Amino acid sequence: MMDPWQECMDYCLGVTKEAGKMIRDAVQREISIMQKSSPVDLVTETDQKVEELIISSIKKKYPSHSFIGEESVAAGASSVLTDNPTWIIDPIDGTTNFVHRFPFVSVSIGFTVNKQIEFGIVYSCIEDKMYTARKGKGAFCNGAPIKVSRQQAEDDAYSTHFAYLYIDITKSLVLTEMGFKKDPEHFRIMMANMESLLTIPVHGIRAPGSAAVNMCLVACGAADAYYHMGIHCWDMAGGAAIITEAGGVIMDVTGGTFDLMSRRLIAASSRSIARCIAKKIQQLPCGRDDVEN
Amino acid sequence: MMDPWQECMDYCLGVTKEAGKMIRDAVQREISIMQKSSPVDLVTETDQKVEELIISSIKKKYPSHSFIGEESVAAGASSVLTDNPTWIIDPIDGTTNFVHRFPFVSVSIGFTVNKQIEFGIVYSCIEDKMYTARKGKGAFCNGAPIKVSRQQAEDDAYSTHFAYLYIDITKSLVLTEMGFKKDPEHFRIMMANMESLLTIPVHGIRAPGSAAVNMCLVACGAADAYYHMGIHCWDMAGGAAIITEAGGVIMDVTGGTFDLMSRRLIAASSRSIARCIAKKIQQLPCGRDDVEN
Repeated sequence: MMDPWQECMDYCLGVTKEAGKMIRDAVQREISIMQKSSPVDLVTETDQKVEELIISSIKKKYPSHSFIGEESVAAGASSVLTDNPTWIIDPIDGTTNFVHRFPFVSVSIGFTVNKQIEFGIVYSCIEDKMYTARKGKGAFCNGAPIKVSRQQAEDDAYSTHFAYLYIDITKSLVLTEMGFKKDPEHFRIMMANMESLLTIPVHGIRAPGSAAVNMCLVACGAADAYYHMGIHCWDMAGGAAIITEAGGVIMDVTGGTFDLMSRRLIAASSRSIARCIAKKIQQLPCGRDDVEN
Repeated sequence: MMDPWQECMDYCLGVTKEAGKMIRDAVQREISIMQKSSPVDLVTETDQKVEELIISSIKKKYPSHSFIGEESVAAGASSVLTDNPTWIIDPIDGTTNFVHRFPFVSVSIGFTVNKQIEFGIVYSCIEDKMYTARKGKGAFCNGAPIKVSRQQAEDDAYSTHFAYLYIDITKSLVLTEMGFKKDPEHFRIMMANMESLLTIPVHGIRAPGSAAVNMCLVACGAADAYYHMGIHCWDMAGGAAIITEAGGVIMDVTGGTFDLMSRRLIAASSRSIARCIAKKIQQLPCGRDDVEN
């Protein structure tokens, strides 16, 4: 039997390329900025235009499918995930980076059926890196297979030293998000969590500023873990497929099963590293994407 | 009269390209790791090989010149800056990134005469971005002129919105380093400084993990400021020329004049942003590069 969703993925790839080109062009031109709730929460005309391009292109071809897009939800659309084939879209992941022309900016698209992620595409469009993963078929960057760091250590005959490097969390490079939180308690927990990890110690913390790119950096072995609370389903859906297919794991910050609508995530190269982070960090109350706030 | 140091710069460019290629090749191969004082303080065989390549190539052509190189100093060489033409070299800036294949890794070379920086070259070799600056002649990335963000706002007729964006520090993207410090007081100050900036608030903090690349990101307008204490002259010499020639400023963390051997730095798109950061951060006692510790 033909893979029923491969056609959707192939179509998605074309739309994502077009969206990425639109973003690259905008970076060269004027970026007209509006402010949502705070200086940190920027939204640009380009966000809205790119989401419109993506959703209208896909709707034309798959009119019965559902959509959850960052900008549509901001404008009042529902973000409840159903069993219907659903496209979960972040038109520009890393909007602050985009506004500053900081080079990690991506288009992120995840596709679910019966609430399970079938494929994910993340296009880091300034770097021109297209990350793709179809369930059960592996993860790729610009067509070349990618693997998380630990996998590399185990499988790669000539890089035995990597086994030493990734054997425990003290040799790991951890990604997170570092922004201002209006709620002082949230801010305190964010800082305490960084301190808690840095004093294990780990090799370092990096904050590239795009959730989807962070997940791809873990997927291709450039970092060992990423944790984030307060994230949204459209930041995670594309990357979740890519991490998993690259041999990594995603889990909830409690150490339990990953929940796409829970607004929190640990992504890591191995279960042991993910669990270690789960033990080290305090949880933030985040709400859910599928409950009206 | 011919520019007496342009020939050195041209020669340096060729050597830097060769060094960058050596690093890129190593990233594909086994990375044999030694540990210096802590898991965070990694040194690799490649660091030493690349520095040897750079210094031996330059010495052959300019035997009377002086050298300050990260690995030579680690092996006991002097790091006192004299009036003699001096090459200040970091063979791999971002060693932790290099070991993890995190994509910000650079070769950084600054050249001083009478203790003044004459030119700087930073080659972000995984991204393949060659940043160059000759005193009084502007800064370039892969041959195209670069400018800091504020300059862009003032000069660029069609990007008037950028003026709004960069008019005060609350619209800025700030880079810093986020690693483990063995001294608990140093660690406390590092965390307090991040908190102090995030609560101004700023748009965000990013931690790319290579000092020289951070300086280039400010130079090309992708970020508005970078501060670091505990840095070395070889991390700063190349980038200092590039920031300055791109229209930015470098100053001491006290708000005073930048001192290449002081192990501390604020680099920013404008004097006002640099001063604002100087006021907001607590100082770390760092020692000096030119005093035996």
